[in-house]
Amino acid sequence: MVEHVAPVAVDAMGGDHAPEAIVRGAVDAARRGEAVVLVGAEAVVRAELARHPGTDALPITVRNATEVVDFHDHPGQAMRRKRDNSIRVCFDLVEAGEACGMVSAGNSGAVMAGAIFVLGRPKGVERPAIVSVLPGLSGAPLLLDMGANVDCKPIHLVQFALMGEVYARRVLGVARPTVAILSNGEEESKGTELTRAAAAALRRTALDFRGYCEGRDLLTGDFDVIVTDGFTGNVALKTMEGTARVVGELLKRQLRSSVLSALGGLLARRSLEGMKRRMDWREVGGAPLLGVNGVGFISHGRSDALAIANAVRRVRQAATTHFVDEIAAAVAPAEALLAAPQEP
Amino acid sequence: MVEHVAPVAVDAMGGDHAPEAIVRGAVDAARRGEAVVLVGAEAVVRAELARHPGTDALPITVRNATEVVDFHDHPGQAMRRKRDNSIRVCFDLVEAGEACGMVSAGNSGAVMAGAIFVLGRPKGVERPAIVSVLPGLSGAPLLLDMGANVDCKPIHLVQFALMGEVYARRVLGVARPTVAILSNGEEESKGTELTRAAAAALRRTALDFRGYCEGRDLLTGDFDVIVTDGFTGNVALKTMEGTARVVGELLKRQLRSSVLSALGGLLARRSLEGMKRRMDWREVGGAPLLGVNGVGFISHGRSDALAIANAVRRVRQAATTHFVDEIAAAVAPAEALLAAPQEP
Repeated sequence: MVEHVAPVAVDAMGGDHAPEAIVRGAVDAARRGEAVVLVGAEAVVRAELARHPGTDALPITVRNATEVVDFHDHPGQAMRRKRDNSIRVCFDLVEAGEACGMVSAGNSGAVMAGAIFVLGRPKGVERPAIVSVLPGLSGAPLLLDMGANVDCKPIHLVQFALMGEVYARRVLGVARPTVAILSNGEEESKGTELTRAAAAALRRTALDFRGYCEGRDLLTGDFDVIVTDGFTGNVALKTMEGTARVVGELLKRQLRSSVLSALGGLLARRSLEGMKRRMDWREVGGAPLLGVNGVGFISHGRSDALAIANAVRRVRQAATTHFVDEIAAAVAPAEALLAAPQEP
Repeated sequence: MVEHVAPVAVDAMGGDHAPEAIVRGAVDAARRGEAVVLVGAEAVVRAELARHPGTDALPITVRNATEVVDFHDHPGQAMRRKRDNSIRVCFDLVEAGEACGMVSAGNSGAVMAGAIFVLGRPKGVERPAIVSVLPGLSGAPLLLDMGANVDCKPIHLVQFALMGEVYARRVLGVARPTVAILSNGEEESKGTELTRAAAAALRRTALDFRGYCEGRDLLTGDFDVIVTDGFTGNVALKTMEGTARVVGELLKRQLRSSVLSALGGLLARRSLEGMKRRMDWREVGGAPLLGVNGVGFISHGRSDALAIANAVRRVRQAATTHFVDEIAAAVAPAEALLAAPQEP
């Protein structure tokens, strides 16, 4: 029933807990039957694999990569100078069709640079984007860009919307995704020159474009695709993370503040754990890249085995939809939309 | 022991629940001994007052204002065309020294416009700002600007920092406030041209400037004053509100999902209520304006009596510190700081 796909390439060297947690996550995925190819210093990777019993029988292969990109490396330079780095080798495998997609918890700028360098962009794509898949009250709202593009022009936001719509429809299975631009108010008069120009263009598309949404709408699930520049997107994502953490911390303090509450807290712990899991970025399994010729996911630098195992699943799911084939056609009208006469 | 101060002017006509909730909040404040002057259509305000017993003996006066600014009005036009509107009359009272400060839950753009129009700006202030007082894990971090200035230049961010530091020190009593610029990463290389220029200037001040902070730092209390442009500030604030609401909603769902959890939830309810109150914008009592010659607070459009009563207290507290007197001196060096040679 499952379509045969090439294994998922996993960067064994990237992330705060590499290679140990990465290898463990890949092993967990393989135990579920998902083929992986671990990319990194072969001796190190094999030593990690040896710590897990029975991996010989699992669909795991190892591909040697002699160099590692660390968090201090300049992304572009790292791709050019460390030609045999594990991120780049992952993309080489994707490019060659030996992997259906890749995931790395390493330097996210380098992952994006590697994707552009090795895979390239579909025709017409101005800027690839990093997509955050949010834990919505309903559905999984996409927020892009998440930091690859700090200074954006209208055409970038328009293309983010067009690419995000393809992902929501093809990969997440939303029949007709709603699309919005993140702004400082719902009225058309709000926003910046950037958002107003992008909104005018998106109103001319066949997308289910709902105009502006606000920060409070990010997690409701009312909007399936939310576009913004990488600076604002990064601030919004980290604000969500921070707020969820602070609310959890305040709850803990409150629960400790009285005996009655402490008892209640004991009983409610299971609920709190459930909620935490619901808000947990590790469950989401990483942020897909959009606008490159292949499937790449950036996983959180703090990724543990669970995060990596989930990411492997998401990469595989995304790859089987072949959504990349639709991206070039989707972005093609962007320039003409912006060139059309502006509304009065 | 309490310094004698003029009453707080309260815009009785502004907000979703005006005049009823506004008048009730003013009455509650007056019952605590805080003098208020209610500004609005006199007959309407007196009718509302008549619904509360014993208000004759309270320190409440009424000032007639024949016009109302609504949420559809253009802020600047409303101030010029509706010359006897309740927001403007509030500021007239502040200007004349008949009120120590004012609060309105009405059209926030009009409140800012009225402040600039009637009170004016201290010498050297380029752009007044709206400050959000956040419910920090410790302390009350200030985030500015909250939406008055969507397109900012470096000098605006620098002045926001200098003014915010005065407010944190004089009004909130923080001995040596820490100051940061909201950005998409902590490293100096992150941010936009705007944030990098402002950061370079702020490094030359005597402020306890900590460079960039991220969205996840907004509520920790690690930074007392956090500056950003009004677009990003608005997105961040509404993202915090929305995330807190969604986390609460998820918790409720989880608590209902099992009998054991439901029992726990029942016992923990008091804790949850305590936490909700902690995160509640109504407790904060509104957003002060910085960079105008007087004390003005913008209260949430959805303000109820509690929010208004708390805002009256905050206005009064702020007015007694005479922090406004220090603003002009604080912003004076901003231009020279930016003109200094840029670091390599």
